[in-house]
Amino acid sequence: MTEFLTACRAALGDAYVLTADAEMAPFLTDWRDRYTGRALAVLRPASTEQVAQLLRACSTHGVPVVPQGGNTGLVLGSIPDSAGTAVVLSLARMNRIRALDTVNRTITVDAGCILQTVQEAASAADCLFPLSLAAEGSCTIGGNLATNAGGTAVLRYGNTRELCLGLEVVTPQGEVWNGLRGLRKDNTGYDLRDLYIGAEGTLGVITGAVLKLYPQPKACITALAALNSPAHALRLLGLMQDHCGASLTGFELMSQYCLRLVAEQFPQLPQPFKYTHGQYVLLELSSSQSEAHAIELLEASIGAALDSDVIEDAVVSASVAQSTGLWQLREHIPLAQARAGKNIKHDISLPISRIADFIALTDAALASAFPGCQLVCFGHLGDGNLHYNVAPPAGMSDIDFLANQDAINRIVHDQVTAFDGSISAEHGIGALKKDELAHTKSALELQLMRAIKQALDPQGIMNPGKIL
Amino acid sequence: MTEFLTACRAALGDAYVLTADAEMAPFLTDWRDRYTGRALAVLRPASTEQVAQLLRACSTHGVPVVPQGGNTGLVLGSIPDSAGTAVVLSLARMNRIRALDTVNRTITVDAGCILQTVQEAASAADCLFPLSLAAEGSCTIGGNLATNAGGTAVLRYGNTRELCLGLEVVTPQGEVWNGLRGLRKDNTGYDLRDLYIGAEGTLGVITGAVLKLYPQPKACITALAALNSPAHALRLLGLMQDHCGASLTGFELMSQYCLRLVAEQFPQLPQPFKYTHGQYVLLELSSSQSEAHAIELLEASIGAALDSDVIEDAVVSASVAQSTGLWQLREHIPLAQARAGKNIKHDISLPISRIADFIALTDAALASAFPGCQLVCFGHLGDGNLHYNVAPPAGMSDIDFLANQDAINRIVHDQVTAFDGSISAEHGIGALKKDELAHTKSALELQLMRAIKQALDPQGIMNPGKIL
Repeated sequence: MTEFLTACRAALGDAYVLTADAEMAPFLTDWRDRYTGRALAVLRPASTEQVAQLLRACSTHGVPVVPQGGNTGLVLGSIPDSAGTAVVLSLARMNRIRALDTVNRTITVDAGCILQTVQEAASAADCLFPLSLAAEGSCTIGGNLATNAGGTAVLRYGNTRELCLGLEVVTPQGEVWNGLRGLRKDNTGYDLRDLYIGAEGTLGVITGAVLKLYPQPKACITALAALNSPAHALRLLGLMQDHCGASLTGFELMSQYCLRLVAEQFPQLPQPFKYTHGQYVLLELSSSQSEAHAIELLEASIGAALDSDVIEDAVVSASVAQSTGLWQLREHIPLAQARAGKNIKHDISLPISRIADFIALTDAALASAFPGCQLVCFGHLGDGNLHYNVAPPAGMSDIDFLANQDAINRIVHDQVTAFDGSISAEHGIGALKKDELAHTKSALELQLMRAIKQALDPQGIMNPGKIL
Repeated sequence: MTEFLTACRAALGDAYVLTADAEMAPFLTDWRDRYTGRALAVLRPASTEQVAQLLRACSTHGVPVVPQGGNTGLVLGSIPDSAGTAVVLSLARMNRIRALDTVNRTITVDAGCILQTVQEAASAADCLFPLSLAAEGSCTIGGNLATNAGGTAVLRYGNTRELCLGLEVVTPQGEVWNGLRGLRKDNTGYDLRDLYIGAEGTLGVITGAVLKLYPQPKACITALAALNSPAHALRLLGLMQDHCGASLTGFELMSQYCLRLVAEQFPQLPQPFKYTHGQYVLLELSSSQSEAHAIELLEASIGAALDSDVIEDAVVSASVAQSTGLWQLREHIPLAQARAGKNIKHDISLPISRIADFIALTDAALASAFPGCQLVCFGHLGDGNLHYNVAPPAGMSDIDFLANQDAINRIVHDQVTAFDGSISAEHGIGALKKDELAHTKSALELQLMRAIKQALDPQGIMNPGKIL
């Protein structure tokens, strides 16, 4: 391996080939602090050409490569295993905005750009880059692409996949594919772009991307609706989409238990309703016209929902501060959960029409198997995406509860499969859900994926042990 | 081959294995009547299971398979070559709407469904399936998916790729991949769906799909703007998107020469402007609220465009009939071209910001090489997609003119490449543009495509001679 590390140092300079344990440590432990791997080295290239040189060295010496962006993933996809034979390839130094074209409405960026930096660069040019998620201050666009990240704006703007027009990728053999196209239509052969997106670094290293920009909305208005059940929330979704079309840019479900948890852990946050209700929906409307138009449209829609008994109550934000306050309730759910103790998380999606039945049946199955367990169910209902998390019954220790993790996953994921859903809506598979993937996918689909992996990475050096 | 045909007849019944020349003829000639291939047989399965049986027979006997939908393709992608060793696999009998879910807003269909049938089924459920293109009365959804068809609604709703949530595909080995998921978010491994979409039947046979539906807009208003140049049209596009956001659902450019051609060939169509202008843009606005809202928004936007000298004149449709009349001008351009004689077609896309320069430089290069040639330039400007067609100088015979086809393609496609564009925006590659693809793609991209082809179709029986 001396020869390999010498080649890496020749490519990057000594300062960017980390081998000391203390220097490597931040790159080896996952975001949720559940696992620490080992590595031969952490490599910190500053350019696509350097990435290509490193990949050629890895290929020559058969060294496994774990690409890493902001290391904010939730499924152990961006850290190495415990073998200590792999290198971590950190893209964090590749953080240039390469170009911004306001007429084509595209921004071309290095993969290591922080998501928030991309949002801000777009905003400075009076454009919107709509991808938005909790880790946006730390995650990189390369990681967003590798995991096809979702977030809160998918209802209107799609996942990261839908926001990307072109990619630059370094292959496992160290060649650079320049697919940095800024085109809305391009039917010239196989869709390599979408193959690399969501592949979690197992087919090559994304080093750059052309992303779509949108006009900034003139106004953005938020409301919180109180209603009886998930079925009512689905009726509200249909009603809002019929009334507002593409102006509906957010639709987040939160159960009564979620808001109670937030109230307990963060009593300083204002709670908008006097009485408790079964479910809550956070609505966001954007208008390309004016704030007055957004308010008029939102109030008319909410009026219709009240008139038809779809909702029980609602508050509409009268200011940016109030809107921020409503979003804070939603954003504090994961924080409140973390403060309250351990829980077993599921990032699932379902056909929207089947969500109410899924929740009812899965809640019942869990209550029967684990009496007293608490369901922390919230998520991007407009995308069919639930964060369906299970917390221990009052009085049970975290350790006792986590001993049931496999049994609880089995119940939830079998229900997901029975309802034609997905066991990973927006977080990916990584190492964490690899066994669950093998359990839920057909043999043929796994075989097709393996054939593609073998075709593009015959040495198997790209992010081994992830997905497949 | 007797054994092979016996297996096909056992699978389908004799009536659906066509081998007589007269019966096969309609399946062997392309839509534009430029090429007639030969086939061993035309196979007409009625179910996915029958397709799988046929593919197993083809695989066993090494028989090449040419999948075919409505056979409306423009690049010789759905007909066999002249060898006579392949079978045409017509999906036309597989034309069931399998399911429609108004809450999930999805429709599940057989691949052989006519596009218009899908549109009508959606409409009957008060939903919109937005894919719309000239051949919609004849083309099938399987062909739309295999070619990732575009059309006139891409600006708002995306290409066929963006309208598809799930696929059912029969592999070249005759196995059925059930990827019929109706999910907006699903990050569980490689994106097989997008690999099959746009692969033009070279990786497997699409037999079914889950497609996205949208709420029906409450109103749809059309206008025709007259303006000076493509650069002005781009300014108008930016202005309209800023004012109208997602309500802007159509933006079609037509040059003066295009409308003159339509006026000459179809004098019965009303021409809305008294004076001629350099360029015209057909605008369409949809509103989820009301017709009054759409008219108000369109008139305000057009007013702003007039005030800032972006446009010279405009008419807004005051009725459905007038709106239809404006769209007819656009839709009659290809028909007028066909009546006027032969022309050399280019289906190209460019970064939107570079379109004006592309048109100016390419017009000049062609005028210099072929003095007097006529440029018939129109298309989906909002998607960066031009139909940039070249007609002969007055007095030149079609035969003399078509002798220059390769030289004209070279000039146009080299300019496309220089402007970072695509030589096929929405029609695909087929057999017609295979050599141009090899000319314009990097060696690495071709190699990656070949690796995928080899991985999924190692026998090379799927639609040979297309794309690669």
